[in-house]
Formats: sequence, structure tokens, C-alpha cells
Amino acid sequence: MTTVERPPTRRAEEIDNDQHPVGHGRMLRKEDPRFVRGRGRYTDDVRLPGMLHMAILRSPVAHARIVSVDTSAAEAHPGVRAVITGEALAAQGLAWMPTLSNDVQAVLATDKVRFQGQEVACVVADDRYAARDALELIDVEYDILPPVVDARHALDADAPVIRDDLEGKADNHCFDWEAGDAAATDAVFADADVVVSQDVVYPRVHPAPMETCGCVADFDPVEGRLTLWSTSQAPHAHRTLYALVAGLPEHKIRVISPDIGGGFGNKVPIYPGYVCAIVGSLLTGKPVKWMEDRSENLTSTGFARDYIMRGEIAATKDGKILALRTNVLADHGAFNGTAAPVKYPAGFFGVFTGSYDLKAAYCHMTAVYTNKAPGGVAYACSFRITEAVYLVERLVSRLAAELGQDPARLRLANFIRPDQFPYATPTGWVYDSGDYAATLREAMRIAGYDDLRAEQARRRERGELMGIGVSTFTEAVGAGPRKHMDILGLGMADGCDLRVHPTGKAVVRLSVQSQGQGHETTFAQIVGEELGISPDDIDVVHGDTDNTPFGLGTYGSRSTPVSGAAAALVARKVRDKARVIASAMLEVAPDDLEWVKGSFQVAGDPGRSVTIQEIAMRAHGAGDLPEGVEGSLDAQITYNPPNLTYPNGAYICVVDVDPGTAQVRVRRFVAVDDCGTRINPMIIEGQVHGGLADGLGMALMEIIAFDPEGNCLGGSLMDYLIPTALETPDWETGFTVTPSPHHPIGAKGVGESATVGSPAAIVNAVIDALAPYGITGLDMPLTPSRVWEAMQGHPTPPI
Amino acid sequence: MTTVERPPTRRAEEIDNDQHPVGHGRMLRKEDPRFVRGRGRYTDDVRLPGMLHMAILRSPVAHARIVSVDTSAAEAHPGVRAVITGEALAAQGLAWMPTLSNDVQAVLATDKVRFQGQEVACVVADDRYAARDALELIDVEYDILPPVVDARHALDADAPVIRDDLEGKADNHCFDWEAGDAAATDAVFADADVVVSQDVVYPRVHPAPMETCGCVADFDPVEGRLTLWSTSQAPHAHRTLYALVAGLPEHKIRVISPDIGGGFGNKVPIYPGYVCAIVGSLLTGKPVKWMEDRSENLTSTGFARDYIMRGEIAATKDGKILALRTNVLADHGAFNGTAAPVKYPAGFFGVFTGSYDLKAAYCHMTAVYTNKAPGGVAYACSFRITEAVYLVERLVSRLAAELGQDPARLRLANFIRPDQFPYATPTGWVYDSGDYAATLREAMRIAGYDDLRAEQARRRERGELMGIGVSTFTEAVGAGPRKHMDILGLGMADGCDLRVHPTGKAVVRLSVQSQGQGHETTFAQIVGEELGISPDDIDVVHGDTDNTPFGLGTYGSRSTPVSGAAAALVARKVRDKARVIASAMLEVAPDDLEWVKGSFQVAGDPGRSVTIQEIAMRAHGAGDLPEGVEGSLDAQITYNPPNLTYPNGAYICVVDVDPGTAQVRVRRFVAVDDCGTRINPMIIEGQVHGGLADGLGMALMEIIAFDPEGNCLGGSLMDYLIPTALETPDWETGFTVTPSPHHPIGAKGVGESATVGSPAAIVNAVIDALAPYGITGLDMPLTPSRVWEAMQGHPTPPI
Repeated sequence: MTTVERPPTRRAEEIDNDQHPVGHGRMLRKEDPRFVRGRGRYTDDVRLPGMLHMAILRSPVAHARIVSVDTSAAEAHPGVRAVITGEALAAQGLAWMPTLSNDVQAVLATDKVRFQGQEVACVVADDRYAARDALELIDVEYDILPPVVDARHALDADAPVIRDDLEGKADNHCFDWEAGDAAATDAVFADADVVVSQDVVYPRVHPAPMETCGCVADFDPVEGRLTLWSTSQAPHAHRTLYALVAGLPEHKIRVISPDIGGGFGNKVPIYPGYVCAIVGSLLTGKPVKWMEDRSENLTSTGFARDYIMRGEIAATKDGKILALRTNVLADHGAFNGTAAPVKYPAGFFGVFTGSYDLKAAYCHMTAVYTNKAPGGVAYACSFRITEAVYLVERLVSRLAAELGQDPARLRLANFIRPDQFPYATPTGWVYDSGDYAATLREAMRIAGYDDLRAEQARRRERGELMGIGVSTFTEAVGAGPRKHMDILGLGMADGCDLRVHPTGKAVVRLSVQSQGQGHETTFAQIVGEELGISPDDIDVVHGDTDNTPFGLGTYGSRSTPVSGAAAALVARKVRDKARVIASAMLEVAPDDLEWVKGSFQVAGDPGRSVTIQEIAMRAHGAGDLPEGVEGSLDAQITYNPPNLTYPNGAYICVVDVDPGTAQVRVRRFVAVDDCGTRINPMIIEGQVHGGLADGLGMALMEIIAFDPEGNCLGGSLMDYLIPTALETPDWETGFTVTPSPHHPIGAKGVGESATVGSPAAIVNAVIDALAPYGITGLDMPLTPSRVWEAMQGHPTPPI
Repeated sequence: MTTVERPPTRRAEEIDNDQHPVGHGRMLRKEDPRFVRGRGRYTDDVRLPGMLHMAILRSPVAHARIVSVDTSAAEAHPGVRAVITGEALAAQGLAWMPTLSNDVQAVLATDKVRFQGQEVACVVADDRYAARDALELIDVEYDILPPVVDARHALDADAPVIRDDLEGKADNHCFDWEAGDAAATDAVFADADVVVSQDVVYPRVHPAPMETCGCVADFDPVEGRLTLWSTSQAPHAHRTLYALVAGLPEHKIRVISPDIGGGFGNKVPIYPGYVCAIVGSLLTGKPVKWMEDRSENLTSTGFARDYIMRGEIAATKDGKILALRTNVLADHGAFNGTAAPVKYPAGFFGVFTGSYDLKAAYCHMTAVYTNKAPGGVAYACSFRITEAVYLVERLVSRLAAELGQDPARLRLANFIRPDQFPYATPTGWVYDSGDYAATLREAMRIAGYDDLRAEQARRRERGELMGIGVSTFTEAVGAGPRKHMDILGLGMADGCDLRVHPTGKAVVRLSVQSQGQGHETTFAQIVGEELGISPDDIDVVHGDTDNTPFGLGTYGSRSTPVSGAAAALVARKVRDKARVIASAMLEVAPDDLEWVKGSFQVAGDPGRSVTIQEIAMRAHGAGDLPEGVEGSLDAQITYNPPNLTYPNGAYICVVDVDPGTAQVRVRRFVAVDDCGTRINPMIIEGQVHGGLADGLGMALMEIIAFDPEGNCLGGSLMDYLIPTALETPDWETGFTVTPSPHHPIGAKGVGESATVGSPAAIVNAVIDALAPYGITGLDMPLTPSRVWEAMQGHPTPPI
């Protein structure tokens, strides 16, 4: 054998830098190979040596005083390591925790239980089976109290006081919000030709993510460090709260949100189970896993909506909308979890004026405590916009019907015009950009709107109940700016770190956390677009407080508007630094260089250029750098958005209602969204498809109902129906693009648009279908029985 | 039960911020609780599900052509998953890898084996036992070649050519280095009153860290990501090299250096075992662990020294030293691993002029290949300074003896004076600061030098062999600056990231990696000193390429001089930003604020102040920030030092030699070090104690010897002796402080000083003790047999 072939000595700059396509556009999701091949790692996949399992005993009743809790039999059960009660927590000052809305919530009940499903005790055991079995051995004596189940009676003088833990609290009032000028609005209403009012109930619903909530808490007593894997949409905010609750310093807490099977707001709040698992690990010195089962998730966590609303619209007789006035009663359950972290007028409900150019508007909201699980989570609603859009779009279509006008054309006549941006609404918001008429016209074009109307007329003559529903919306997403948010004293701003390795590969670290939105792809595209690096060469890190910059999480469609801006701007910082290095490499002034995706070229001499990869090697390499350049191509940013972004959309739905069974079938659904610059159209379409299914579920089948004793009637997916492929049509999507002028790449966010906009289109379509019956007051969900009752002239029955 | 006591809603700023002592000073090591309680996590503690184990077949001979390798029996052995040969690697272009010195090294031998212990094949199996058993079933046929064992014959015309893999290579020459002006030096020598020359051998030694080398390689084929836990002193440089070797992009490789049980240069190179484990994981799709046993570590990895040196010193007759001239033959074994990554003249050997103010100096070095394991690692030697110091300090004491002068006082008369700094040496180095005379006088004071000399005289009269040895040194540590280093094309600069959490707790991320030096404590102190935050509230992250900024590792005492400067400067960046925020909080101009450790106070109104914790909360909190301030208190830096730092020291050793057995006992050892600003004196003392033990071992017992066939004679700790508590005296340490003017906190580094400086003091002491015998040419290690032979007038025998 002789000397073997071998490559010559290589140096770092020789690492493969083949150019791949870079930047925005349709590309497959980088995270999907691990998901489709079963290599995702979810919280329940975390299995640590010696790990124990926790189960939670929950209250069987909605309202009761706790007389006694006897855990002796449970403690004696084989395999049980610890039984934790509220009293035990109280002894350590841990029985209550702050919420993200500046309320407090019981970790484990001590004085009273306040909703069915409330956490009363927990068992930590060697396995899940022992823990669940031992729960049944805990003997709790309750002194039953009358519950408050109907928000309309929560403020009655004789209503039992739910939150008697709050000092001096003598009623069930939670908070009041208002937005707009009441007197000015009343004046416009007084002079209006037409006033239409509408009572609307947006029922309590549940986001029902594929993965339930859970965590693994691992406290290391030697290092004094707590590591918590958890299904959290906001790991940094959660870390701060755990620091407050558990008394551990912030830098000794690491919250890891691994792969997450859907959030939709359900995973924004901190649930008592997380804190109990932490206490379990502190007590036992072992890692402790807690995973909700489906029933716990559906009955005890993360509800949204539950709004009883009256809306009024004032218009001229020829259909010019003048003003809106609304009054809302919001049921937030027993504790105010995530309803009110914002300082915007009326929370985000204040954006209820939608896409319309109004003279005046006013809304008022009263939130009350009831004996239900905490509600008000930001379920694809940008903090209450979903309810507002639904109410107003019902009102506008009702107005069109009253005036005998076409609902699409009446909207076209009332939209804010493109030349009016930036547009200040009567409630104090400043919209960034949009062409609302173009968006709706595009939806009408795709739908073949006029043909549909003709078809409807033909079918109606044949006794068929075909309906066409229209809804449009403008969302306010991308919370901050920082001064408008306050979660536990923390403002809304998001960090982003970018590190370019010597060979030009990069890693970007996000403060936001993906629950399925495709951050690993989208953010690689954003950075790749700015730096001319293939997204395949850019790794995205998220969901680990130790290894990402501070930020307040993913909800309210804020990832792209806030962190997306941060990612683009931090890449531009790197590019600015690269320009200086390139100028030294090419021996020209920085201003004489032109950036051509991925390279700096000497202006007028394109043959003289250096790639970003060559610059990265120079930045890390041997040899001098220009004066003042430190070396490396790393940068960081904390981004505080100057304004919210305002995506909009126009949706048209075609339904058929079976005259015999009252079954509603969504035959077609056209969704045209304008989320500004589109980074990855495939991902946007996926987001829209999912949101439309959400909206269809809420419109037709989803409701968390309670009996008069406060028993939850939706504790399984047999009771709480969510749409499947069978109920959903082939979504037809389109788009317009009006970039946000204050976002560095013009993106506006699209995560919640379809959920926000679609229910009104479906309900409007059903009401349109039922026009022969003269129905206006139809409330979701439009189950066959509810529609049938309405067709018989009966009031909408409860579920 | 009534309403339970509970704390009111808390906000983030309420997280405990009790003030602890901050900054520099003696404090217990933050990492020690986990080490002393058995909670450290070393590479061998990493156990992954499904993990396989690898063992390496090594060459039994020093030089041979490989005729054939038959792995069939090994492959059939139960539990074996893969048998990897050089030929298999060659088929994928992986048989050779670059070294950190721009040489290439065989991963697994293909054409020839070039040293005893060279890697020939490896087995991956279900457990370590199966892997080791299967090694014995691999049948390798060797065609034995004559070896080159003695460097003095490596360049003989008839010497076999070892590196015939290198194109056109017809001899065993490795490289030549020189420093200084040969002609000018010769001229000074020609005119000198006195010229003394000395031949000195610095034997091959081994750092013998407590933990051997090893790794766990885990390749995820779905994500295309390689994670490698390894005992590496330079994880970022290793990552780059793996990218070059394995063809994986850099951002898909994560190198984690967990807790490490000592490095001392042994863990700087990349060993074939790492690459084989990576290939094993790629082949099997499973994690693969490789851990050296002690014998492999001692025979195949990380050797240092092996220098045959002649030194000459020119002086006036009254003892003024004029010039130095040296010629060195360096044996770097079969591959040049880490000997020459530097572009300084003669590597760091060029600092051989030490603490002396000379007219001229010149050195020349020839390095050769031999059939020994690769040598030249930076074993506590700042890249060859150890050898240089030893040679020159032997020479200076010899000169004193020849002139009949006291060796301490002769040194005092020849030192560079404090007013001469910055001092340019004749070999092109610019020393930063020092007061060498003060340092030696402090050592003489502690030792009671004059009393010792008197005692020596008394004892000598009684026939007792008491010796007093002196050595002094100036080291050049803290490599870069970047332009002077080049490892695989990468320059020497170190990043540091600092993140201050909302409540003022902080995390600092280092590019350097601790192998026991106490980085988690020292760097927390550096940052704490700058920001007025308790070191307990500052976590230090290191040793993980995914989560630390780029840098070239810990060796050459560079952590404090380079990364320590980076940490101080990045903290000052944060402080500058905090000043702007504080000025807004206090409504005064930034310039009107005074920084008083931990707070900004309004000048002249100390009652008006804000703490760094309050500023951190403001930076992250709700509410506006001053114009241009992004929010957060994060910062990053890449630090390129403007110069090396130059710690110095003066050591005095007292020995007794048993006239009958020739056993040397170190009775006292006084070490006075000047490492500039002292961050944690306790850690400095620990470093010095360890280095003195190193030096004692090299002086008295350590040598890796070879027989004429190239068989290594030091394959276990029974053969390769290292000192224990029994052999070491109670070290007496002292210090002087001359801060480095170009280091932000004036620190110079101390990790290697005692190893560098102590051998000469011990050997000089033994020669002094043996003065009655007229011995000058005594070479380490001073084993009883060697000393006894010398006392009999015989030349020093080989071991």
C-alpha cells in the first residue's frame, strides 16, 4: 500500500458555501422533516432519570368553602412521594400567584373553590397511574355555596361574592373599560337617519390545541437552578413569574419551551399545574412531570370569548355609516388570567371600528367574575378583536339588510380610503396602511360575487336556502409598543441576536417562541433576505430563556410584526458592519460599495466584489480589521415597535342550509388577506387555512356551556366539537399587499386574521340564507337544533 | 377556614435584589459546590439513550508499513456495530485531518504507522467490553521499518523518511524558527569578557490531567446536526476543524465542553478518536462514546517539551549580562499538532530574553519529525516559554557561579528597570509593565534569603547538601493579537456576551472554556466589579459553541488577559447604556451622574440615585426610554487585544540532597508572582500551587522515555511518576502588582506562571547543593539515580 489520496490541508474559509436560493418566497418548512419523521421533541417526550409524575385533584363543584382536606390515605398509597395541598403551599407563601393581568389566582385552593375543575391538591408519585389512583384517596369536605354562572346576574345585589379573598371586595365586578367619546357618539346617533341595534352573544370557546398543557420541572439543589420544560407561548414572561412565585432569582430559572403542538392563546397563562410541579421538584429533589389530559385541558384552562354584546350602528338612509356604539358584558370566570395586560383604550376591543371611516364611536365594557374557569385568553383574537369584529360585521350586514343594500357594496362605500392613511380612528388608534376596497373587490372577484347572487336568487326561487355572507376586518397586531403593555411590570419589546459564523453560516436567536407557526423557516428567510445567505444556512433558536434574548412571547400575531422586524434590523446591523470590512478588503470607501444580494460590489466595477461569506471569514480571521471594527459578524437588537401593524381582510362565505334538518354546510369560503409583505406564501396560506377552520368551528359547533350549578358541559372532544376535514370546504385564498410603512420589511402578521374574520362571514351567510324567515338574532354556534328553532320562530335556545 | 394569608400581587422589580459583596477579592469558587458534591458533569457522565461505545486499535510499533488489515473476525464479534479502518475512511476522504498547526495527521493509519500508539482501526459496539474484546480480533500485518527515535539523528542523510505522505518530502525536517539579530548578537559575544555556555535537555513530559480525553458524538440524521460533547480546551476551533473534516456546515455542529478535569494543553489538539467517534455516529445513526483509558492518554496524546538546547550568555566580568544566544532542536513527533499556530518570531520561544535588559539576543530552532506521538502541546508553557525560561535561568545561575556572585543579586543587577517600560526586547517583543527587582526582593524577604545562605554555609561545613535555587521569568501570555495568530485561517480574538435580566441578575457568555481554572467565579467577579452586581447574581456560560460567542479557547494563560478584558469591556458597554437610562430616570444629564459601585448618583446630591437593578427593570419595563436607547441591558463585544500581557515572577527553592541516596527533597519553595491586578487571590494561589507541583514533577520525576525501537516507556502512572502531597512542600506564595497598562483592569494571567518558572529554581537549587561536586550539566528529571551518577562524576544517564 502506498501513500493514500487525501485532501490538502484545508482552512476555515474552504467550508462549503455553495449558494442556495435566498430570501422571501415559497419554501418548505425547515422544521417539518423532524415533525413528519417523528423526531419532534414535545414536553411529554422529555424523560429524565428518576423523574416522578404529578396528578391534580380538581374541584367537583363550582363554588364551595373547603371544610377539610384529608390526605393521609393518599400519602400511604404505594409509589406516592408527596401530596401537596393548598394549606401546605400557604405555609410557604405559595398558595397564590400573580396572573399576567395583575390579578391573583389560587395555585391550590385554600379557603374556597371558585370553579369546577379548580386545583385543590396534587400527588407526586413514581408513575402516572399511582398518582391518579392516589387522587381518589384524598378526602375533601366541601360546604357548597350558590354559584354565579350567568354573567348577567353577577352584579346582582344578592349575588354571592366570588372573590372574597380580595380585600374589601363586596361584589363580582372585575374591571371596566371604555374607548371613544361617548357624548360625541351619542350626538351623531341622535342625528342619524337610521340606527340599527343588535344583541350578540359570543359564546365561551376553547382553543383546543392538539397538545395539552404540561411541564417537567427539574430543580437542582446543588446549583440552585430550576429548569422547566413547559408548553409555554411566553417563556421569558413565565420565567419572571416563577421568580416571583418561587422566590428563586431569575438567572437561576431556565424555561425551555420545546416543540409545541399548538398554542392559540391556551398556552399564554401560567397554570397552577406548572407551579405545583415546581414545588413537587423542590420537595422531592427529583424531576416532576405534569401533563394535562384532554379533559383537564378542556375544562380548566385557556377559555376565550364569553361576551354578551349589544351593538348599535348609525347611518344615513343611503347607507353611509356614521358611528358605532357598543356595550359589552365580559365573563372572565373566577380569576382574571390574561385579559388585561394592555394599556390601550378598552384593551384591543377598542379597534372595533374596523375598516370603516366613521365620525364617532364609543364602546364600554364591564367584566365580571363568575364561577367558571378563568377565561379571556388571547385565543387568536389579538386581545378581544375577534369579538369586536364579529359584533360590528354582524351590525354592518344587518344595516345592509335593513336598507335593502348589498352587504359587500355597502362596505365598499364605507371603507377608509388608501389616501387617508395613516388613519386615526375615533377610538384613538392610528392605522398604518391598507386598501380595503381592493381587498374586498379581490374577494368578490375570486368568489364571482355577482354570479353567486344570481345563483342565490335562482335557488331561492326553488326554495333552497343558499346564503352569501361577507365580513371584512382590520386587526391591530404586533403588541407593544412597550409603553402600551405591562405584564408584571415588563414592557413589550423583543430582542434578537444574530451570530454569523466564520464561514458565513448564521444563527438567529428569537425572543418569541413557535407553537407551529414555522419560525425556523420564516426567520431564516427574513435574515437570509437581508444578508444574501441561504435560509438553509441559518439556524433559528427559540424557546429557551437561557439562550434567547428577552421578550414577551408569541401571541396576538406579534412574531412577524415585532420579532420579524427585529430580525431584519439586526441583520442590517451586521450588513452595515460587513460593509466597513468589505471596504477595507476592496480598498474603497464604504459608500462606494453596492449591496447586491449576498455581496458588496464596487460601484461601477461589479467584477470587484466580496461575498458575505468572505467578509465573515475576514471578520473572524487572522489579519487586521478596519479601525473601530471589533471583529466577528455578531449583532443584537432590542426592538420596540413604533406602532402596531394593521392587517386586514375580506371574506366571503357561501352556505347551504338544509330546509329540513337545518344543517349548515359551508360550500365555499373565499379569504383575501392583506398582511403586508409576504415572507413565505405557503406558510401564510397554512395559517389562513387553520384560522378559517377555527372560525368555522366557532360559527357552527363550538361552545363551552355550563349547567345552572356551574358544571362544565364540554369536558371531552365528544362534547366539544371541533371541525374536521369533513366539515371544511376547500379554502379559496387570495391576497393584496399594502406593506406597513413603519415595519422594516413591511410585514404585518397573519396568524390570527382568519380566526378573527371568518365567523361573521359564516353567520352572516346563514342569516342571509334564512332571509325568507326574517331572522336577525341568531347566535353561534349555529348547530342544527339552534338553526331549526330559529326557523320555527323560537328564540335561540341555550346548548 | 377563612381567607388565607397571601402576598399581594408582585411585579418583576420586587424580585429579591439583596446586595451582596461585589467585585474583586477572595471568594469561594461558585463551581465548587457541584464538584465537591459529585454533581459535576464530565464527558464520561454523558449517557444517551442507545449510546454505543468505541475503542481504538493502536499500533504496537513505532514505524511500519501496513500490509493488510483484516476486520472480519471483529465484525462477527457479538455486540459489534461497526469496525472502521483507515481504508474505509480514505474512501470517504476522511483518512487525514488538518492539525491546528497547518500540518495534516492521519485519523486512522492507511499507508504506514508512524508512532507506537497510532490509531489504526476502531470498533463501535454495544458496550465498552465488546469493543475492547473485538479489537483483539483485528488482524493487522505490519512491515516493520527502522524508526527515528533520537531527534539528533532525524536529519541524518540515511534517516528513514517518516512523512513520506507529504508530497516531495525527502527528510524529517519539520520547520525552522528564529528570532533576534544573529550578527549583532555575535558581535556582542565577540567583545564580551565572559561567555558561558550550557547544554540543556528538557525531556518529553505529559500534562497527565486527572480526566483523560474523550467524547460523545451524536449525529441526528433528520436535523443533520452533530452534537459533540468533548474534553476540548477550544470548542470553537474544534468545531471549525470538524466542519472541515466531516463536511458538515459549521452551524450544524455543536461542540459542548462540559466540566473538564484538567487540560494543561493536553486537550487543545484534535485527536483522531474524536473524528472516529463522529464517523461512528454517522455510520450507526447512534450516539457513540469514546473515552481514553489512562494508558492511551499517556502514550498517544498531548506531549510537551522534548527540546535539546544549547544556550550561551555573554557578560562583563563584573556580571553585567550583555547578550543571549541559543540553538534548539525540537522533537515534535510524527505530526505537528499544535506547535506552530503563532506568527510571533520563533513562536513564543522568542521571549527567551526573560526579565533581563540585554544588548542583543538571537535564537534558532529546528524542529524535526520523529517516530513518536505528536508533541509540542501547549502544556502550561505559553507556546514554548517554559523551555526558554528553563534554559536561560540555568544559564544565568551558571554565570553567577562562574563569576562567584550570588545568583539573586546578579539577577537584581540585570533586570529591566520599571522606568524602561514599555520595553522592547532585542527579539521584538514589547513588555507592558513590571518591577522585576521588587518581585525578587519580595521573594528574598519571604524566604529570608540571607539567613538561608548563612544556614547553607553552616550545613555545608557539616557535609550536608543544602541548595538554594533562584529563578525569575517574564512570560508573554494572552494570545493574540489576532494578526499574530492563525489557526486554520482563524485569528485570535474573543467574544463576550452579557445579558442583564429585568431584575438585574446577569449572565455572561465566554468564548473561552474552563478546565478547572474557576471561570464561573472569576468572570462573575470581573463583571460584578464593573456593574456593582454580586457575583452570586451573575451566571457564567462557557464551553458550548451554540451558546457562546466565537473565540479560540483557553490555553497560554489567555482567559483573563483576553476574555477577562472582553468581560470588563462588555460590562462597561452596559454601564454606558445604563447611564443614559439613569439620566432619564433622574432627569439630569448623563455627565452629571457619578457611578458609585452599583448606582448612578446625581453629582453633589447622593440622595438622588438609581441602582443598576432599577435601571435594568426600566430597560425592560413598560414606559418610554431615552431617544436612541433600544431597551434591555444586553451587550456584546469581540475583543482583539492590542498586545500580549507579561506576568513575571521570582522563585526561590531550598532543597536538601541526601548524600547517601541522592534523593532530592524540596524543603521550601517561595513563589512571588506578579500577574497584575488580582481578581481572586484564592484562585491565583490555587493556580500557583498547582503549577509549582507541575514544575516539581518535571524537575524531579517526570519523563516520557522511549527505547531505541521507539517503544514508549511511560504508559501508566506507575511508570510516569507525578508528584503527590508527600513530595510537595507547603508552598509559600507572595505577590507584587504591576497592572498591565493596556488591559482594562490591568490583569495579566497567571495560569502557567508557576509551571514555567519553578523547574529552573529546583534544578538550580540541586546544582547549588551539589556545588562541592562541581556539577553543572545536570538534566531533568533529577531522579535519585541520575543525581547519584552525577555525584559519582558520571554523565547523566538516560532513564
